Amino acid sequence: MPAYDPNNILAKILRGEIPAIKVYEDQDTVAIMDIMPQADGHVLVIPRAPSRNLLDADPATFKALYETVQVIGRAVKDAFGAEGVLVQQFNEPAAGQTIFHLHVHVIPRRAGENLRAHTGKMADMALLARQAEMIKQALNSPQT
Amino acid sequence: MPAYDPNNILAKILRGEIPAIKVYEDQDTVAIMDIMPQADGHVLVIPRAPSRNLLDADPATFKALYETVQVIGRAVKDAFGAEGVLVQQFNEPAAGQTIFHLHVHVIPRRAGENLRAHTGKMADMALLARQAEMIKQALNSPQT
Repeated sequence: MPAYDPNNILAKILRGEIPAIKVYEDQDTVAIMDIMPQADGHVLVIPRAPSRNLLDADPATFKALYETVQVIGRAVKDAFGAEGVLVQQFNEPAAGQTIFHLHVHVIPRRAGENLRAHTGKMADMALLARQAEMIKQALNSPQT
Repeated sequence: MPAYDPNNILAKILRGEIPAIKVYEDQDTVAIMDIMPQADGHVLVIPRAPSRNLLDADPATFKALYETVQVIGRAVKDAFGAEGVLVQQFNEPAAGQTIFHLHVHVIPRRAGENLRAHTGKMADMALLARQAEMIKQALNSPQT
């Protein structure tokens, strides 16, 4: 596997060099809106620790990473009245990885609703910002 | 969400009441061959701790669970000469969950090779057993 490149987009977002619509952050993780969402409420959960993907990650990363995935999964389910939550993580291009800093996709799901393409059109930023507020509200008043 | 049902198939496998082709186990997790594999080398990683899925899991489960996912991910990539690894986890039927004990799908991927359907035909058990041996061998002599 190629080495970690510190100039990937998520590393730049973590350093504050390029903007992102954040819904949550703590000492170890950050959660942002995916700008090419496969469904409304599609969030990326990112560890601050650098690794290309899950295969080369420091195992010490996993506890905080998936705690945040759980918190975000519950929040997007509540915020969008979803029936389920898909949690996906891609390692290397053959598996669908396009950005080479470990990240986990958290996607609200409804029965019979197809996912939009992963490399689809960029979403409307104002709409994403409103959806981020819905998620933050659900994070502040969890139903489950 | 419905409560955890201790009579689900994975709980029975964990209790040894029904058979499975194991490739790995430790104090907190078990890894078995998926009997309806979406690709050769498709493994399920299962925490011993009971929960319906990731949404209701004890967060203390995540460290050991994803450490095993990493170990298995590297091993199936090596064993099957794969270019990538897909890590998927489904919460509730609307997201594709069919067995209601938390489990993580670890699937070797090759560029241009489509996944087989998740609820496809049962695999040949002798073939699965041979593939399990390939994974165990990769676990014993990791390349990465």
